[in-house]
Amino acid sequence: MHHYRLIVSYQGTRYLGWQVQPESYGQTVQGEINIALGKISKSSEIKSLGSGRTDSGVHALGQVVKVSIPLKIDPKNLLKALNSHLPDDIRVLDASHSDQEFIPTVHAKSKEYHYRFSTQEIHPPFAEHLITHYPYELDVELMKKACELFVGEHNFINYFVEGTPVSSFVRHIYECEILEVPATDFFPPYFVFRVVGNGFLKQMVRLMVGTIWRVGRGKVSLEELRMSLGPVKKEKLAAVAPGHGLYLIRVNY
Amino acid sequence: MHHYRLIVSYQGTRYLGWQVQPESYGQTVQGEINIALGKISKSSEIKSLGSGRTDSGVHALGQVVKVSIPLKIDPKNLLKALNSHLPDDIRVLDASHSDQEFIPTVHAKSKEYHYRFSTQEIHPPFAEHLITHYPYELDVELMKKACELFVGEHNFINYFVEGTPVSSFVRHIYECEILEVPATDFFPPYFVFRVVGNGFLKQMVRLMVGTIWRVGRGKVSLEELRMSLGPVKKEKLAAVAPGHGLYLIRVNY
Repeated sequence: MHHYRLIVSYQGTRYLGWQVQPESYGQTVQGEINIALGKISKSSEIKSLGSGRTDSGVHALGQVVKVSIPLKIDPKNLLKALNSHLPDDIRVLDASHSDQEFIPTVHAKSKEYHYRFSTQEIHPPFAEHLITHYPYELDVELMKKACELFVGEHNFINYFVEGTPVSSFVRHIYECEILEVPATDFFPPYFVFRVVGNGFLKQMVRLMVGTIWRVGRGKVSLEELRMSLGPVKKEKLAAVAPGHGLYLIRVNY
Repeated sequence: MHHYRLIVSYQGTRYLGWQVQPESYGQTVQGEINIALGKISKSSEIKSLGSGRTDSGVHALGQVVKVSIPLKIDPKNLLKALNSHLPDDIRVLDASHSDQEFIPTVHAKSKEYHYRFSTQEIHPPFAEHLITHYPYELDVELMKKACELFVGEHNFINYFVEGTPVSSFVRHIYECEILEVPATDFFPPYFVFRVVGNGFLKQMVRLMVGTIWRVGRGKVSLEELRMSLGPVKKEKLAAVAPGHGLYLIRVNY
């Protein structure tokens, strides 16, 4: 087998998420990549491994994928072949050789996610699947303070939705902030909740965003947020924010 | 009847274009607006009139629409009611009262269109339906000179695809230029072909773009372009550029 490392961008709108699912469930990004790899290598002995799952509707600018195929090929040509076989909403941005030992999940040192949302009354057509519409008045300064509380090592048991069992709920958040992006022809002015951490639990970022929103609306206090960041399981402070505002930006190794 | 003027933005991807078509053909933007107006006014005696047709897949940031309904309503509330009934890829950005005499087609003084295209090798997922992928090496300086040739009053018989009969092929182009937009998270660096004129024939902008592209590739000379701008019908210099790069930006009255 030959091993390659890909950087993949996708618009998640049409997909059930990254991870391959039984065919009857619907299309997944990994499923599309596997189909393309099968065509290119003319083999069913192909394997792909992403840095982590992204959920239904969630996008990626820099998903890292290790692929193993029984074909020796210049990575540049693999990139071209993949992009000619993949649907237009999945693009391979970079391809290189990979060590056999490389495991994209385990070896990731940190990941960066962005969550985009707009509070404008009217949500332009082009933002429909790319930016979440949250038309409420928000105290942005308070939300920025809330972001600071997330930074550091915490037990995120209250920012986790049951799924694959995990051995620990402790994660280290290195950076967490809110950025403001001015309007363009395509998009309204919008906010980016930007977070960098050594790892994220299932739906953790979207629960952080949901909580931050409620802080911004004065429905959750900074003290309540602080109290939620501990090993004691409590009622969640907020609902999970919708998937279509979330982007896996990059994975650092 | 009561008359209102709307400014409407839409992503044309899912639609057969602006103009209502027989139902079996598929969805149109005007059709969706008519359905929403029918629900709001609880009447079938509704009428909508756009500033002009946009073709299948073509977008608008500022289509101007006069609607006539048997309902007196505060324009602000009409805007809200329309946006709550319309699909998310069609948004009313502004609504005001309109004179009965106002005819959006006839009274338009000028229109501005943009055509967006990228020459990058890889076309990111988010650009799929919004920016045309034209991965060729282009002489941009030469294309800018070509744009200047379009400015002024010309007979555009060679930039016209047969459709509704027209009384004249003469149109006045006030501004025509190429702008360069830097890359963002969502989009690659791309070019905007920007044109303002007193009116446009069917597929005229897309034929101008197709021609400009061929100038940029050295396949059509400035002299050939100059010669095409006259009353003598000739073979077209280029194919019609795809619809999904085109945007009706605004209509001036």
